[in-house]
Amino acid sequence: MINFQTSPDQYKHWKLSVEGPVATLSMDVSEDATLAEGYKLKLNSYDLGVDIELADAIQRLRFEHPAVKVVVITSLKPRIFCAGANIYMLGTSSHAFKVNFCKFTNETRCGIEDDSRHSGRRYLAALNGTASGGGYELAIACDEIYLVDDGNSAISLPEVPLLGVLPGTGGLTRLVDKRKVRRDRADVFSTLAEGLKGKRAKEWGLIDDYFPTSKFQEAIDARVRDLSNTDGQKDAPAGIKLNPIAVEVKPSGLEYQYVTLVLNREQRYADLTIRGPECAPQKTPAEIELAGDTYWPLQAYRELDHALLHLRVNEPEIGLVCLRTQGELSNVIAIDKTLVAHREHWLVREIILHMARVLRRMDLTAKSFFSIIEPGSCFGGNMLELMLASDRSYMLNNPDEGVQVIASELNGGMLPMSNGLTRLKSRFLAEPEKAAAVLVRTEPFDAAEAEAAGLITFAPDDLDWEDEIRVAIEERTSLSPDALTGMEASLRFAGPETMDTKIYGRLTAWQNWIFQRPNAVGPEGALTNYGKPTQAHFDFKRT
Amino acid sequence: MINFQTSPDQYKHWKLSVEGPVATLSMDVSEDATLAEGYKLKLNSYDLGVDIELADAIQRLRFEHPAVKVVVITSLKPRIFCAGANIYMLGTSSHAFKVNFCKFTNETRCGIEDDSRHSGRRYLAALNGTASGGGYELAIACDEIYLVDDGNSAISLPEVPLLGVLPGTGGLTRLVDKRKVRRDRADVFSTLAEGLKGKRAKEWGLIDDYFPTSKFQEAIDARVRDLSNTDGQKDAPAGIKLNPIAVEVKPSGLEYQYVTLVLNREQRYADLTIRGPECAPQKTPAEIELAGDTYWPLQAYRELDHALLHLRVNEPEIGLVCLRTQGELSNVIAIDKTLVAHREHWLVREIILHMARVLRRMDLTAKSFFSIIEPGSCFGGNMLELMLASDRSYMLNNPDEGVQVIASELNGGMLPMSNGLTRLKSRFLAEPEKAAAVLVRTEPFDAAEAEAAGLITFAPDDLDWEDEIRVAIEERTSLSPDALTGMEASLRFAGPETMDTKIYGRLTAWQNWIFQRPNAVGPEGALTNYGKPTQAHFDFKRT
Repeated sequence: MINFQTSPDQYKHWKLSVEGPVATLSMDVSEDATLAEGYKLKLNSYDLGVDIELADAIQRLRFEHPAVKVVVITSLKPRIFCAGANIYMLGTSSHAFKVNFCKFTNETRCGIEDDSRHSGRRYLAALNGTASGGGYELAIACDEIYLVDDGNSAISLPEVPLLGVLPGTGGLTRLVDKRKVRRDRADVFSTLAEGLKGKRAKEWGLIDDYFPTSKFQEAIDARVRDLSNTDGQKDAPAGIKLNPIAVEVKPSGLEYQYVTLVLNREQRYADLTIRGPECAPQKTPAEIELAGDTYWPLQAYRELDHALLHLRVNEPEIGLVCLRTQGELSNVIAIDKTLVAHREHWLVREIILHMARVLRRMDLTAKSFFSIIEPGSCFGGNMLELMLASDRSYMLNNPDEGVQVIASELNGGMLPMSNGLTRLKSRFLAEPEKAAAVLVRTEPFDAAEAEAAGLITFAPDDLDWEDEIRVAIEERTSLSPDALTGMEASLRFAGPETMDTKIYGRLTAWQNWIFQRPNAVGPEGALTNYGKPTQAHFDFKRT
Repeated sequence: MINFQTSPDQYKHWKLSVEGPVATLSMDVSEDATLAEGYKLKLNSYDLGVDIELADAIQRLRFEHPAVKVVVITSLKPRIFCAGANIYMLGTSSHAFKVNFCKFTNETRCGIEDDSRHSGRRYLAALNGTASGGGYELAIACDEIYLVDDGNSAISLPEVPLLGVLPGTGGLTRLVDKRKVRRDRADVFSTLAEGLKGKRAKEWGLIDDYFPTSKFQEAIDARVRDLSNTDGQKDAPAGIKLNPIAVEVKPSGLEYQYVTLVLNREQRYADLTIRGPECAPQKTPAEIELAGDTYWPLQAYRELDHALLHLRVNEPEIGLVCLRTQGELSNVIAIDKTLVAHREHWLVREIILHMARVLRRMDLTAKSFFSIIEPGSCFGGNMLELMLASDRSYMLNNPDEGVQVIASELNGGMLPMSNGLTRLKSRFLAEPEKAAAVLVRTEPFDAAEAEAAGLITFAPDDLDWEDEIRVAIEERTSLSPDALTGMEASLRFAGPETMDTKIYGRLTAWQNWIFQRPNAVGPEGALTNYGKPTQAHFDFKRT
């Protein structure tokens, strides 16, 4: 079982140091501390374990070190920044693992950009040596890239020429969409195994600048000083501590304080229940800071995030998640009101941004989600997003039971999907007035009203309820898991596209295809034969 | 060798009838007239041969029958409109063929939408019986869909539940993006093998209306009358004849009047040369109508289109196309001026739209394109698009040889890519002022100027020229064809996305993946086992 929890004192591959407004994240991968057998993490190459630490560090910077304004990402290894994902790890991994590994590393890099865009921290890649493949893709997720000019160090995306696969962490998309590198230059760069050194890399827009070895540290320091204007640092917030998530691992699933995951492995589906807040005592930022990571919107969503990652990587045969909520609608709505009222406060902002990221993780999880809306549920406000993110929803139609759903201001734009739309807008592309009507209504919707408003898929009554849910589960879990993954990826993201949806939708799909092809992973494939005395042989038919 | 040329008198599967402003395209597939052995085209199911006729009919409507305002697509078979792509054909086809088959059928359906959007013809799907899979996808490419209510006929996308693959002709994307069907309803519909009948199909927005059998024809006729307002029909243009493209098939390639394709099969690349107009005698719409399909912009682009289709389907091992032009820049620019001056004329409009479609066919061809700009070339205006559509360009830097390129007004918006951008804008996403500068300049660019303007990739001089081209070809053709296809699909379409780019980028990539998976095409896969007494068995791991 892969463990997604860590903390700086347990890091094996990264050093995190914080001095006032500047954090330095230094990569120093220990070759032997791998997640699996069969490969060594040479030259600062990484496996999922290395990236779990990076994701943890970035999360902690946001919550534990809010005073940080600049994050320098660099390496402690001489002449090498990072050699990217470990090829031998990829070569020996299952298809499903490779795909989920790429998805997680993409989420980590999109997380860096989310921090930069919404929380204003600047990320600076200080490439003290060669950055190849995923190494350059990590750099290009940062705001600025500086490369040492030592006559040797280069940036490169050697996946196509050396491995017969694509750069898997958004490199191609960020080249042309983020840095807007000319497509013919991107073509040359992405087929050049040795990559480019400072001068041409800068000319082509692949890096921001380069400096000779003797002046590199000095130049980075100067740029960091420019970016970390220390005005107001006296009053900088102190941050809150992210303690480990308490989770009990049972044979039947996982038990957290607010989340219960029950695995019905025989039937290949899971029941995932999220409990709403018992009450909403914290009303002020000071009270929220005091509650820290026990504040419901932070704790419940951290638990949900953990459960989603567990489902993805450790429970691949679970194809369907039945989502339920338990609690008082009014408590959820009270929490949302507090969050909205104080959304400018640093911690409240980070909590809302975190909720948004977890919900996007759900959108991007290759499992079907059915929301089951029963008596005692609390699909309101932020928890209504769980329903809106689901592929379908079933709501019990029994007026006596008081089964209700309701929106809050949080549904109006603070929890966007990767395509930039709210889930309400995305649901009502044909009838935007319906999304507006749901948002303004202050009374909860019962099942008949929710159906009329277009909020839910089906509203069976007591007589049909159990059969309908049972049959829906049986049918869903009988379908081809591959076809469902492709179908859900297509139907979940109607409307506009962004760099993120291109990475998760288009790039991921192409990479999935290539990761299956004999030209990459067959006995004569390039990925299989990398680093061996044998050579790759291709079937040259273009598809 | 698959032949992409046909004409109504040779159709085996469609009847095209034209009466004044109304054309009726009736599907009546002959079971035995298949492109390959091993399957029968029952129930109006189709193979590539059927779709080549459909594409031909739509093309002819635009050029030969410009007076047509409404196109009714229906079937002559009782109780069945169309059962979609033939499953046994798919089951017995190679991966590469399946993918190219889907791409061509997608282009045909996007061509219907292109005609509707730009030429104003209304397409009306008159579903006189069940439309399943590709049958419904053909309907959803039309402007309006009407279904007979005979107690039995339904629309459906049974690919996911029955075959373990995706609807391959844009069905999922058009459901949520074109018809803006709610994503949960799209989810239910796309997993329901039997589909939906009239009432619910209309309620969910999947069709526009339904009528009982006894009133169906009458209702369709009434709607056609509404749409085909006959004002001005007296003056409707007569159309021009599209004669067969004359092509000589040689062992070394294809020879047309304006296009030469030389296949270097051993080295897996092709030389594709397009000759510009010898002169530009036609200046008025009347002269252009008189020239008809021999008018250079129509004939040369029809030949180019044919060569591209041939390369895709009949020459899969060719991985790289070296594009050259031959002729006088001034003649090309003179043609462009005439086209721009008369772009409101029906035939000139259709010619420009056709050029745009052929250039998009090139963008979407899974081969690398290098433009080779040598003495005697004429990369100007519309032919400059060939260079801009290429993955790279090499321009000989010898001022004495007079190698030049130049833009025309046609490069400014009349030949858009699938993402809606001009190729100039797409090239200069980072520096839009450079695109504008290229457009306004009236003097040709020599190699040094073109390089400075950012128009070309490399400008080697005489000394380096041959070696550089040779090495570039050798390097390109040595790379993994799969990785190149994925890379090019990613780099060619920076910036915005449209329904078309979603279909070609995202849907195609997912389908490619699924078409490779054992769950679809393995011995126990759903596609393999369709219609057999054996049952599919899935590896239920979600990826």
